[in-house]
Amino acid sequence: MAVKIGIFDSGIGGLTVVREIRRLMPWQPLVYFGDTARTPYGTKSPDTITRYAMEDTRFLIDKGAEIIVIACHSAASIASAAVAQEFSVPVFEVVSPSVAQAIKVTRSGRIGIMGTRATVESRVYDRRIPELLPHACVFSRACPLLVPLVEEGWLRRRETRMIVKKYLKPLKDRQIDTLVMGCTHYPLLKEVIQAKAGRRIVTVDPSHQTAIAVRDYLESHGLAAGEDTRDQERIEHYYVSDLAPATAEIAGRFMGRRITMEKV
Amino acid sequence: MAVKIGIFDSGIGGLTVVREIRRLMPWQPLVYFGDTARTPYGTKSPDTITRYAMEDTRFLIDKGAEIIVIACHSAASIASAAVAQEFSVPVFEVVSPSVAQAIKVTRSGRIGIMGTRATVESRVYDRRIPELLPHACVFSRACPLLVPLVEEGWLRRRETRMIVKKYLKPLKDRQIDTLVMGCTHYPLLKEVIQAKAGRRIVTVDPSHQTAIAVRDYLESHGLAAGEDTRDQERIEHYYVSDLAPATAEIAGRFMGRRITMEKV
Repeated sequence: MAVKIGIFDSGIGGLTVVREIRRLMPWQPLVYFGDTARTPYGTKSPDTITRYAMEDTRFLIDKGAEIIVIACHSAASIASAAVAQEFSVPVFEVVSPSVAQAIKVTRSGRIGIMGTRATVESRVYDRRIPELLPHACVFSRACPLLVPLVEEGWLRRRETRMIVKKYLKPLKDRQIDTLVMGCTHYPLLKEVIQAKAGRRIVTVDPSHQTAIAVRDYLESHGLAAGEDTRDQERIEHYYVSDLAPATAEIAGRFMGRRITMEKV
Repeated sequence: MAVKIGIFDSGIGGLTVVREIRRLMPWQPLVYFGDTARTPYGTKSPDTITRYAMEDTRFLIDKGAEIIVIACHSAASIASAAVAQEFSVPVFEVVSPSVAQAIKVTRSGRIGIMGTRATVESRVYDRRIPELLPHACVFSRACPLLVPLVEEGWLRRRETRMIVKKYLKPLKDRQIDTLVMGCTHYPLLKEVIQAKAGRRIVTVDPSHQTAIAVRDYLESHGLAAGEDTRDQERIEHYYVSDLAPATAEIAGRFMGRRITMEKV
């Protein structure tokens, strides 16, 4: 039986996770919720982020989601335990698969984390990585200007490259060999980030790793949708809490194609 | 009788208006509300912004405000008429005083507007200025990266100067002689904006102009608070809908001093 995946994010950045899920699981039913009326979460307090994450999850379950994917790093860092405790469905989020991948690829154990203020201040990576790799050294850097730069579409501009370089400098100074792009927006800057990080640093893309984790779970539990579900069950719905004039254009940038979004 | 002024903004940028009000009216009771749990408004839709503005105004009136100041340009551009219609108190906002000042100082009638996406797309300045100055030509430019740059405290950095220059270029190409800094965050960039605009362009600071408009109203209606109200009535309250770790620091930057904020 093909289960429906429910994915939420503070806004539309989580569509980078959806895009990866679609690439690996083209026939799986899915429902997306982007909380665009209250975006971003990354600058808000833990209490507020947890409350929003609960409401978002409830919405997706009401829409038939049987698996939850928290595509927002701030919510994943702060609220995933609370969500998993409250709801009796499997909860995936973008942090754990990135932690697993970072541990797998690092040689020196020196791992850098880029993220929003909320993600970095939650210290989730600083706690989780050493639990699994005791000799690891984790260095984090809040990069709050990257989300607005991506939403502006300034993906390759000189100012963007300068700001990425400035953000990465303290991480490079600590001689990291692995870099987690800890925000759903950052994969769109992957080229610039990789260029400024240099060849010796391996980047980890949480959107991609999360899609792999979800696929592995579905396949091992016999819940993956095959091509035969195409006609009746291959449904995808995209909901947002606000639909501003620029939203559709930005969403297209994240998904790589146009999608229809419904305001709720 | 000294009336209490109620000021709201999508976040804490409106404190630049409070600072100007305090400078001109040190004894006037005031209550501030910053909707930090849903900030920013500038990227959201007109319907959502109007709903938020109504809720913010209701909150201030419940706290005893007898005059409302909409310190958020996005809300002022989109929702001020709806707020004025719904509530039976005088409503001031940041757009009208800037329009009046721009008309007063321009010689050529070529006026540039910087603002958030919502403000620029509302075309409020493009409509309002020619109503009062028929030969005026208004040129607008959305500058969505400036708010996050200010909130990061990057007030004089090279990247900030480059981005301001890029935003101003199309306005300078149109040979404006007057520039409205149409967002409460921009006065903190006044130095950079003035430097990139050049000496021949006069900048208009809406926070300052709005404080003047409120003071003139209070004085002409005998509602201004004198020094004698200091002990009992000189009350100021600052409320926010979310209090993230960085909020107090950013608020201090806007106000020029530390203030105590209460989360509601």
